[in-house]
Amino acid sequence: MVKNTYMRWRLPLVCLLWEIAMIVLFGVFVRFDPEADAHWKEERRQKNLTSDIENDFYFRYPSFQDVHVMIFVGFGFLMTFLQRYGFGAVGFNFLLAAFGIQWALLMQGWFHSFENGKILIGVEKLIGRMWLRCSACQSEGPGAFLFPSCSDPALAGWTDSRLARILPTCEFSSALCPQVKDAGGSMTIHTFGAYFGLTVTRILYRPNLEQSKDKQGSVYHSDLFAMIGTLYLWMYWPSFNSAVSNHGDAQHRAAINTYCSLASCVLTTVAFSSLLQKKGKLDMVHIQNATLAGGVAVGTSAEMMLTPYGSLIVGFLCGIVSTVGFVYLMPFLESKLNIQDTCGIHNLHAMPGLIGGIVGAVTAAAATEEVYGKEGLISAFDFTGDYKDWTPTVQGGFQAAGIFVSLAMALAGGAIVGAILKLPFLGDPADENCFEDDVYWEVSYGGWSLSLWPGQGSFGAWWPVCRKCRGGCRSQVPFG
Amino acid sequence: MVKNTYMRWRLPLVCLLWEIAMIVLFGVFVRFDPEADAHWKEERRQKNLTSDIENDFYFRYPSFQDVHVMIFVGFGFLMTFLQRYGFGAVGFNFLLAAFGIQWALLMQGWFHSFENGKILIGVEKLIGRMWLRCSACQSEGPGAFLFPSCSDPALAGWTDSRLARILPTCEFSSALCPQVKDAGGSMTIHTFGAYFGLTVTRILYRPNLEQSKDKQGSVYHSDLFAMIGTLYLWMYWPSFNSAVSNHGDAQHRAAINTYCSLASCVLTTVAFSSLLQKKGKLDMVHIQNATLAGGVAVGTSAEMMLTPYGSLIVGFLCGIVSTVGFVYLMPFLESKLNIQDTCGIHNLHAMPGLIGGIVGAVTAAAATEEVYGKEGLISAFDFTGDYKDWTPTVQGGFQAAGIFVSLAMALAGGAIVGAILKLPFLGDPADENCFEDDVYWEVSYGGWSLSLWPGQGSFGAWWPVCRKCRGGCRSQVPFG
Amino acid sequence: MVKNTYMRWRLPLVCLLWEIAMIVLFGVFVRFDPEADAHWKEERRQKNLTSDIENDFYFRYPSFQDVHVMIFVGFGFLMTFLQRYGFGAVGFNFLLAAFGIQWALLMQGWFHSFENGKILIGVEKLIGRMWLRCSACQSEGPGAFLFPSCSDPALAGWTDSRLARILPTCEFSSALCPQVKDAGGSMTIHTFGAYFGLTVTRILYRPNLEQSKDKQGSVYHSDLFAMIGTLYLWMYWPSFNSAVSNHGDAQHRAAINTYCSLASCVLTTVAFSSLLQKKGKLDMVHIQNATLAGGVAVGTSAEMMLTPYGSLIVGFLCGIVSTVGFVYLMPFLESKLNIQDTCGIHNLHAMPGLIGGIVGAVTAAAATEEVYGKEGLISAFDFTGDYKDWTPTVQGGFQAAGIFVSLAMALAGGAIVGAILKLPFLGDPADENCFEDDVYWEVSYGGWSLSLWPGQGSFGAWWPVCRKCRGGCRSQVPFG
Repeated sequence: MVKNTYMRWRLPLVCLLWEIAMIVLFGVFVRFDPEADAHWKEERRQKNLTSDIENDFYFRYPSFQDVHVMIFVGFGFLMTFLQRYGFGAVGFNFLLAAFGIQWALLMQGWFHSFENGKILIGVEKLIGRMWLRCSACQSEGPGAFLFPSCSDPALAGWTDSRLARILPTCEFSSALCPQVKDAGGSMTIHTFGAYFGLTVTRILYRPNLEQSKDKQGSVYHSDLFAMIGTLYLWMYWPSFNSAVSNHGDAQHRAAINTYCSLASCVLTTVAFSSLLQKKGKLDMVHIQNATLAGGVAVGTSAEMMLTPYGSLIVGFLCGIVSTVGFVYLMPFLESKLNIQDTCGIHNLHAMPGLIGGIVGAVTAAAATEEVYGKEGLISAFDFTGDYKDWTPTVQGGFQAAGIFVSLAMALAGGAIVGAILKLPFLGDPADENCFEDDVYWEVSYGGWSLSLWPGQGSFGAWWPVCRKCRGGCRSQVPFG
Repeated sequence: MVKNTYMRWRLPLVCLLWEIAMIVLFGVFVRFDPEADAHWKEERRQKNLTSDIENDFYFRYPSFQDVHVMIFVGFGFLMTFLQRYGFGAVGFNFLLAAFGIQWALLMQGWFHSFENGKILIGVEKLIGRMWLRCSACQSEGPGAFLFPSCSDPALAGWTDSRLARILPTCEFSSALCPQVKDAGGSMTIHTFGAYFGLTVTRILYRPNLEQSKDKQGSVYHSDLFAMIGTLYLWMYWPSFNSAVSNHGDAQHRAAINTYCSLASCVLTTVAFSSLLQKKGKLDMVHIQNATLAGGVAVGTSAEMMLTPYGSLIVGFLCGIVSTVGFVYLMPFLESKLNIQDTCGIHNLHAMPGLIGGIVGAVTAAAATEEVYGKEGLISAFDFTGDYKDWTPTVQGGFQAAGIFVSLAMALAGGAIVGAILKLPFLGDPADENCFEDDVYWEVSYGGWSLSLWPGQGSFGAWWPVCRKCRGGCRSQVPFG
Repeated sequence: MVKNTYMRWRLPLVCLLWEIAMIVLFGVFVRFDPEADAHWKEERRQKNLTSDIENDFYFRYPSFQDVHVMIFVGFGFLMTFLQRYGFGAVGFNFLLAAFGIQWALLMQGWFHSFENGKILIGVEKLIGRMWLRCSACQSEGPGAFLFPSCSDPALAGWTDSRLARILPTCEFSSALCPQVKDAGGSMTIHTFGAYFGLTVTRILYRPNLEQSKDKQGSVYHSDLFAMIGTLYLWMYWPSFNSAVSNHGDAQHRAAINTYCSLASCVLTTVAFSSLLQKKGKLDMVHIQNATLAGGVAVGTSAEMMLTPYGSLIVGFLCGIVSTVGFVYLMPFLESKLNIQDTCGIHNLHAMPGLIGGIVGAVTAAAATEEVYGKEGLISAFDFTGDYKDWTPTVQGGFQAAGIFVSLAMALAGGAIVGAILKLPFLGDPADENCFEDDVYWEVSYGGWSLSLWPGQGSFGAWWPVCRKCRGGCRSQVPFG
């Protein structure tokens, strides 16, 4: 191999130094939120809470765990469709998540909730952090498996906080900006993450990748594994969009809206998957991805009064947009723009994310006291304190602004990270090794399973490697 | 192929028209439940709720998500035991669920909770709806994959509401009938769904199906996938049975009863699986299905004071009944009654469902103030308002009546739907294509995986089909 | 075969008699906890609870279900890495859990919460029971699949209660001992379970097991299945450690501490997995197991004020210890001490468990009123009633004592059970059949899947066995 994929020193070094840095930084900055601190009893008394059940833990922990599952099982297995990238998909996603969680905790803490030099963490903060993590997840490429996790959640945290900081430099007053709502992250997670990842991919373009395109295919069982990922993402998306919404009706509403949008998205995905295929058959790739677009597209507006039928309409459109994207746009991106979007990020996150931002802006701008009730309107958009004079129209304007800020941040951030990843010392695998677990993992396909994978060269690689004596069992192979 | 399985126009058309109809109907009828509406703040004040945590969302959302998992992952993967119907099992179950959820929301809304021309949806309603969906799931056959989802949840909603409407036509007074308790759906879901599905299957009998019986077998990995389904159904069944019970002790009790019944069911299933097999080995089919019978059989009585040991007894019996059903009854149904019960619905849902209905009736009739306490008895059976004079005996009578209503509805409904499905224009696959994903799905088994599936004819079908250039990678095959 | 593996009478007999005994014992001893009883309404009034949401069900049910998933899916699939023990891993784990749950309910009930001759069960008790089950799970070996489930949870319940009983025989006064904290079970579950299991394994040593070591290997897909287990264990460990902690801040804190420890553990595991492998590649075995050590090691201290960075440090160390154990200690245990630790119990449970006990003792001893607050300190360690004069130092001493009690109980118990399992009438499979599903399960690998498994002898075994006519489909095999 020309390129260096020998990880023995690089990977351990990065991991260990990184973790030590985390320990130091956590030691200096991170403390328990009052609701998780042993002083809670007094806290509770001050807040006049009648019961321990009012600890935020009970409002959010179930959603927290669902989001958890989405990120580790959902995203992990969704990518196992690659016939020989199963270990990488699940394993690196696992590693990236562990990386990202900790780093993102600090990033957003510094930018958003930095009080008296401390970051106070509770279940809500943990959820918030995991979201950023998603962005990292999306720019995850074969070679880019070390860097994104530390770089792009950082950028996500940055852009995210920019929504609250950069706008001030615009014609708006600084105080207004934290007001941009994006509970489900259509803009800050999906739009940002997707365009960030695509930019990185564009820069890391591999002209000869086509050679290994056979490995980009899927096999029957790998597609079933991927469906595990899809189903968990689909089922728990309502938790994702409602996890950090206001207590009570907001969380309740966010879950219902997301649920309706997802249900409707499945039908249009199936319809167009069959419609656009000459034999009228269904394509697993569409079912695995486009069905989720409905959840992405209500990320911003789910906690608003989008109404069930409004959600159905959004899902309806996104199923179509996303499926069409897979069939027509994706090949175009690759052939014309040299963007090798293996996982279809652009169809699942980028376009639906943009739609989500727009839907959010419109829904916010269209809010009325009649629909929300006086109190409801105020609490839904936090028109309190400095913002008590705000109107839905103004809110809508800021929402729209938020979309562009996310986009700009994504492209800029992606460009920087992409450039860094091109640096030679960050060895990524040679083209012919992409989508190939064998590069980074001890793989034992078992003595014969060459029959499982198409287009294998040497036989040697396929001799069974048992866990005890790696490679010592060749004797087993009938005609070795 | 003689029969038409070309879906390119039919499937998309049905999906799109359907979804558009949903959007219109939702627009006209469906609104947020007060607990999910932005007016909740006022609502809360009126109800004198001390905290947002008393929003129904926090009582039921965790159970809602568990039921969610059961329907999408549980039922989906349970059916993947078929060696070549994995995509169909997971994919069509997914499609059916999305169909059913929306339709059932309307159906039950119209029949049960129609107030001032609106259906108000909250998390409890969503759970209720998903149950109906289960019935659809069970009548899911290779060819019947479009119709049941729209027809039979309707019928389920119908029979369901009949429990509250038809009885009036009996000698009982109309007001009494909503009183029939069936929190876990032993009667309204399992008994109904199973006999409905079996009737449909009977009408769609395929005499030559035996020819493709090799495809009805399972392979090692497909059985492991199926176990994912089984375990999730088993684990979350307590959530299923307790999801819509009264707040507090009722939900708590329902979970415990179900849990006990399931645990005991596993042991008797294992015992008889080994006992009835000549070599004394265990049969994965039994472990995958009969272990769940215990959950079905306490569906009606779980929220009552069935007591832990009572639950153990019910589970004990059902494990036996269900396993014996698989070994002796199933072959009989097929050979003598021409019912091709591929998934063993009769053993998992029909018989345990009936047992559940009976157990429910007996448990209700046996209720005493001593066991429930004065208040407890009233709240457990809602002996309030028009029913304040009711006695457990009367309740037991109605429970018993409910069983027969469910049965009647199931047979009638199944007959109608079956007849419709026989109509030629609804193209179902030729016999030799049943249990075969290749008919409806883009399948790429990978270049060599013919070695995975027994009895393959042509080689061509097995050449690798990568996602980019469908079928263009033949060059890869070593000796193509 | 020399040894008898014919289960037809033995297994069913054990299961049936066992379950009947359970029914009788439950009938005599087990009743609903007041919170699950129909008298709850009065109960609630007495306790002055303002709402049904304060029923313990809503505090613990989500965690209960997560723990549930860990035990059935997590432990079940974690063991599927064995290429031909998938059915056994998932199936026997399933059977063992059902066994263990019921037995453990009685055991701990008798020892811990026996009031007026009754055991009152609610969601908290159910969680507690499931933990014991884990110990059973760990001593689960190919042959020991019937006995442990009834013997070792018993011993677990015993040692567990000894923490509250044996110490009195020491220089401490009996009343103090229930005070030993171990919410996440570092000592009572992991340390105990692991050393118990290892002792059993040592006694059941099979000198010729090496012969079947090829079957101890994994194949690509079996490793992916195992990752499902790993991820669910990893994700839900915070629920496991927080499930039975005090309401409010304790549960909240336990979840956060565990979460931090797990995240940090992943990084050091990856680092050392790559570092200790000559080619610098990652080893799935380490990722599957060592990443969980962080959760084990904060089991005792999670609910204390371990602080986020303290948790990171614990996880950091355990990832290293556990991975090093897999690479160096495991081969040593096998070659020198004749302990065949197939699943790496010693690295995942034993060592991290001990670390956890020590961390717990230190954290407890280091507790101050400043950190916990006056009230906080009292409620965190229950320094009330007889213990109101206790100091953190004393608590720390008892925690330390607890470690040794667990160890002693584990070795003693393991020895006894091991001896019993050696009795001839308990037929375990011959060495050449270990790690082989075919011994206890109806297996149909499909006509050709010999290509999936290395080192197969005869062809006959591989002919397809379809579910209808077991073994009747040989005709299908192209050249049978």
